[in-house]
Amino acid sequence: MDDTLRRQLCEVSTATLCTALFKRGLRNVFLQDVHPIRADLRMCGPATTLRAIPAREDLDHLGVFADPEHPQRKAIDTCPAGHVLVIDSRGDARAASAGDILIGRLKARACAGIVTDGGFRDTPAIERLGFPAYHRRPSAPTNLVHHHMVDIDVPIGCGGVAVYPGDIVVGDGEGVVVVPRAIAAEVAQEAIAMSRFEDWVAAQVAAGRSIRGLYPPDPATRAEYEAWQASRFG
Amino acid sequence: MDDTLRRQLCEVSTATLCTALFKRGLRNVFLQDVHPIRADLRMCGPATTLRAIPAREDLDHLGVFADPEHPQRKAIDTCPAGHVLVIDSRGDARAASAGDILIGRLKARACAGIVTDGGFRDTPAIERLGFPAYHRRPSAPTNLVHHHMVDIDVPIGCGGVAVYPGDIVVGDGEGVVVVPRAIAAEVAQEAIAMSRFEDWVAAQVAAGRSIRGLYPPDPATRAEYEAWQASRFG
Amino acid sequence: MDDTLRRQLCEVSTATLCTALFKRGLRNVFLQDVHPIRADLRMCGPATTLRAIPAREDLDHLGVFADPEHPQRKAIDTCPAGHVLVIDSRGDARAASAGDILIGRLKARACAGIVTDGGFRDTPAIERLGFPAYHRRPSAPTNLVHHHMVDIDVPIGCGGVAVYPGDIVVGDGEGVVVVPRAIAAEVAQEAIAMSRFEDWVAAQVAAGRSIRGLYPPDPATRAEYEAWQASRFG
Amino acid sequence: MDDTLRRQLCEVSTATLCTALFKRGLRNVFLQDVHPIRADLRMCGPATTLRAIPAREDLDHLGVFADPEHPQRKAIDTCPAGHVLVIDSRGDARAASAGDILIGRLKARACAGIVTDGGFRDTPAIERLGFPAYHRRPSAPTNLVHHHMVDIDVPIGCGGVAVYPGDIVVGDGEGVVVVPRAIAAEVAQEAIAMSRFEDWVAAQVAAGRSIRGLYPPDPATRAEYEAWQASRFG
Amino acid sequence: MDDTLRRQLCEVSTATLCTALFKRGLRNVFLQDVHPIRADLRMCGPATTLRAIPAREDLDHLGVFADPEHPQRKAIDTCPAGHVLVIDSRGDARAASAGDILIGRLKARACAGIVTDGGFRDTPAIERLGFPAYHRRPSAPTNLVHHHMVDIDVPIGCGGVAVYPGDIVVGDGEGVVVVPRAIAAEVAQEAIAMSRFEDWVAAQVAAGRSIRGLYPPDPATRAEYEAWQASRFG
Amino acid sequence: MDDTLRRQLCEVSTATLCTALFKRGLRNVFLQDVHPIRADLRMCGPATTLRAIPAREDLDHLGVFADPEHPQRKAIDTCPAGHVLVIDSRGDARAASAGDILIGRLKARACAGIVTDGGFRDTPAIERLGFPAYHRRPSAPTNLVHHHMVDIDVPIGCGGVAVYPGDIVVGDGEGVVVVPRAIAAEVAQEAIAMSRFEDWVAAQVAAGRSIRGLYPPDPATRAEYEAWQASRFG
Repeated sequence: MDDTLRRQLCEVSTATLCTALFKRGLRNVFLQDVHPIRADLRMCGPATTLRAIPAREDLDHLGVFADPEHPQRKAIDTCPAGHVLVIDSRGDARAASAGDILIGRLKARACAGIVTDGGFRDTPAIERLGFPAYHRRPSAPTNLVHHHMVDIDVPIGCGGVAVYPGDIVVGDGEGVVVVPRAIAAEVAQEAIAMSRFEDWVAAQVAAGRSIRGLYPPDPATRAEYEAWQASRFG
Repeated sequence: MDDTLRRQLCEVSTATLCTALFKRGLRNVFLQDVHPIRADLRMCGPATTLRAIPAREDLDHLGVFADPEHPQRKAIDTCPAGHVLVIDSRGDARAASAGDILIGRLKARACAGIVTDGGFRDTPAIERLGFPAYHRRPSAPTNLVHHHMVDIDVPIGCGGVAVYPGDIVVGDGEGVVVVPRAIAAEVAQEAIAMSRFEDWVAAQVAAGRSIRGLYPPDPATRAEYEAWQASRFG
Repeated sequence: MDDTLRRQLCEVSTATLCTALFKRGLRNVFLQDVHPIRADLRMCGPATTLRAIPAREDLDHLGVFADPEHPQRKAIDTCPAGHVLVIDSRGDARAASAGDILIGRLKARACAGIVTDGGFRDTPAIERLGFPAYHRRPSAPTNLVHHHMVDIDVPIGCGGVAVYPGDIVVGDGEGVVVVPRAIAAEVAQEAIAMSRFEDWVAAQVAAGRSIRGLYPPDPATRAEYEAWQASRFG
Repeated sequence: MDDTLRRQLCEVSTATLCTALFKRGLRNVFLQDVHPIRADLRMCGPATTLRAIPAREDLDHLGVFADPEHPQRKAIDTCPAGHVLVIDSRGDARAASAGDILIGRLKARACAGIVTDGGFRDTPAIERLGFPAYHRRPSAPTNLVHHHMVDIDVPIGCGGVAVYPGDIVVGDGEGVVVVPRAIAAEVAQEAIAMSRFEDWVAAQVAAGRSIRGLYPPDPATRAEYEAWQASRFG
Repeated sequence: MDDTLRRQLCEVSTATLCTALFKRGLRNVFLQDVHPIRADLRMCGPATTLRAIPAREDLDHLGVFADPEHPQRKAIDTCPAGHVLVIDSRGDARAASAGDILIGRLKARACAGIVTDGGFRDTPAIERLGFPAYHRRPSAPTNLVHHHMVDIDVPIGCGGVAVYPGDIVVGDGEGVVVVPRAIAAEVAQEAIAMSRFEDWVAAQVAAGRSIRGLYPPDPATRAEYEAWQASRFG
Repeated sequence: MDDTLRRQLCEVSTATLCTALFKRGLRNVFLQDVHPIRADLRMCGPATTLRAIPAREDLDHLGVFADPEHPQRKAIDTCPAGHVLVIDSRGDARAASAGDILIGRLKARACAGIVTDGGFRDTPAIERLGFPAYHRRPSAPTNLVHHHMVDIDVPIGCGGVAVYPGDIVVGDGEGVVVVPRAIAAEVAQEAIAMSRFEDWVAAQVAAGRSIRGLYPPDPATRAEYEAWQASRFG
């Protein structure tokens, strides 16, 4: 993922990206009921995925973490720099998907963020870390109570949305959107253009202009905007 | 809606209004699971309503907004100043009910607020707008994914509560309550009186007094309060 | 509950306590979907319990509060100083479990906090009170709409967790955990030790160290930590 | 509960009883999402109640049933003949509230039925027993997994409805309604009258008559019905 | 709606219709969690719609039914013969959408069926009526407890699906599908063809043939089927 | 899986198996809210698993089934005879997990059953097939609307329970239980013994005997049962 794409996607909102994807027939791209711990941070990076199934008491005890190949610990230590670790927790926030130490390690390794459709523990500490983290709600119990982490970098569901490894995952203060890798560049460019237009529209609206003919623009408005844009960025 | 009524209703809490309505047999007046984007703002005004049904792919595409009569856009451009636009989104927050540009237009038109039992998009921008907005949770996808806005100013349900056009809609940091228009003035007056009494009670409690005989007041307390009130407000 | 235990439990996170309890076979100790009104406050104390059943219109009218023996009012006026009042609201947040005046009374009486798996009303005022209060979501309607408070200090469920009178209830910015009284002291000591170790681990991780062999610690790491600890606290 | 009352209540539907109670201001009397295992059986009797809280692993193991005072077993062996055992399972059907052997014992002891807002296990066997049993859905796990039975004959909630010991519990193929004891006789008589009228209405409707003026009846219809009734039962 | 179309649509399954609609880009046409009272009946007819909002205690009392213009009663007495009455109950099954007498009237008037995303009361009697009726679950309380019927023949949502007056509503033992009027004839014809093919496939599968190349058919299978069909129906 | 084990497990109830597994510390083995289409059939066999993630519009179109390697079709054609195909549908019943033709193929191939935590389509036809099938509720839409079948024979979750390929899956009229392969034989034997004892208990209870000392048995009852068993089975 090149820096331009990353910069562009961090500049636009998840709402604008949803609309750009809707234009391409993709209707289900926003993770449902998944919220930022820090609404002031932006997140963007390719997905590395981690998949959980329900825990079973005989298999999921504290001893499992002694194994460095345990998928949760391995995912934390191998998620590439710049990537977002996305965890399929089956929407179950009754136990944590991860906590502050593991998320601190992701930060130290220059990963881009972490997402689960379950919950995180140590959320006050995660908030202080200043690392992009999205979840359903805080959840103090250790993951072993309900989750068995089972494999890494397979296609998963998260928040009701398909996430394929390498998909571009973008987060803002509103939530998280998944952009298929193959169309990420074109979607980013379109979203940049849409954002600029919408900034102009918002300014017009704040100045008292009606949305009629403005949003969406009729041909006259479109011409007006293009003229303005040309005069400004020309 | 006259200014006195508006001022009175903005002065009392939704909790106090719920109790005043409960005394009149109205038990279901508080919108369930509908939250303010900005807890520091107050909202009060008559309801203008907008109703949505589920979207259908062939009818709900981006082209529909070119029609200035599209109910969502028309509602935004015709909701009277001082009114609250209340949207029946069938409790579905999977797609947005509105976004920052439309809400900015409501603000520019001096409307009093916006409420949905779905979600808004562009919530970080809405937060900056400083306009009263209440919803279930942030939702970035465009409304067309799940909502078809169908008519304006019909009776609706929102958050499980009946909302008739013209009902007085009041919001505080806790949520939103619906006051039937015909009893709004008497309810406001009673709520003002209740609020004053409860402020006095809270001060007594903070000073260490038991709630026994105080809240609710026995005759002695009632007399004591009335004496205090007379001495203070004469 | 002695001061040392209280101090220790206020020092550790609910997440760490959950793990210490998990080691003892207790998997279901964290109240689900119960959140702090003020994430910056800590709470710790023995549970005094209050139980609600669904309201019935003929029994639950505003007149009931004239009775000083009404369980809700009695609980507020008799909950011992230092105790946490825990309310079983059957997970129903459609009406309030309590409001700011009653919670103000708990504060004046030096109680340690209040918890419900329903909602509180007057939440803006509760936030200003600075008293630890945990609930599902704000709920303005008076409790009589849906709750009939029925008895005090019986075993209850709250947030899906068993709460026995006298159990130690601990809250932080993440939520609430219930520690059985009989093991509270040993759990607290273990949690203190775990917390110290995890603080050291977090510092190592922030400095760039891998979690491999660190968390959980292998024998070498364990020795390293003990040496560090001896040099520091020795 | 005398035989006439029992016979009358077994003759009318839960729907008719709900309407008779609605006329008296009682709106919340039908257990929500609680279904008969055998839709062909009728049930009627005073409530004996059993209350459950969430299980805790150290307290709820198979050994507890060796204690004859264990509330679940004691309730089964002491529920009076003719009574309905109503279990507050907090709406949790993940583990059973009871199974075929205990329900067989209720049948042998001439109890009138059993109700839970959780689930029963051994439902195929319960179906063969031919004993009125109402629950949310089948649930094979033993109650100890999620339920701790805690006390008998206290007021409870079941299916979102208040149930006081001694309330009259009536079940048909549709579900279960709770009739406060004090008004059971008058409600039964009214319901009998309503049922007879509705049977006559249904026959009229089947014969092609409009519901206009018929249901509810206008004065002419009322007179017609009374004349018919007089001629028939005169 | 002509008889041929009705006969065709009654011959095919809702599953086949869903696939035919999916081919046309319509993904959300099957009412979610809406079930037949009698799985052995088929239903087909244009939709007449009835819309409910939440009840309000002062407006929704038994007296309202004395008004022959009350929307629920009017809908029952004016729904055209051959039509299906579809009720938007906002998915709320806590109170009934209709009962056996009103449904009996629909039957007497030769309507085609009734659908709600709430519940019906008097379900044992409705079962005996032998009239197609689809709902979420049985619900004995009168509609006034939670529903206010507000208007007729407006676009509605039911079971999460858009229903426009005149849309063709088809029900079988599985549930209910909504077919937009304009494409009903072509969808019916395609579904008939698909059903015949699937019957042939099912027979092949029962005889031991692999689904590979059969379902969906490769060119050879397609030719084989067409030859068989020609020999049979030719 | 040998025939004796299969015969034994088909002879005992899922309830008894749950208890035998609870004795071994396994509390979460019964699939929640998963129901038989035919309550009169029994099912037993090793699990072959199929995993779904949410669909994406560009990837999940009817054309995908032309690929014989499509996981859903491949699973149907390769699930070994005697095995139960268990589908992880993420609890999403909005679209089908499979339909009658594919399930007919499983039957023709002598598989033992099919389970999903979503829904099946063509349920009336599946009922006629007489093949064990368990799901949440009927769902007519094709799987492509919401499901993307992604891989075969990986560990999955189904109904909130972990299912590993090869685990023994047992179904009766109540639902489905998962027995870890390694302990299946010992659990089967214990369950057989428990079932025999419980049959004897049920007969005692039907004859009027108290459950006190009987269930669970005290030493005298245990001796009595063993004597009876010895006299009967020698």
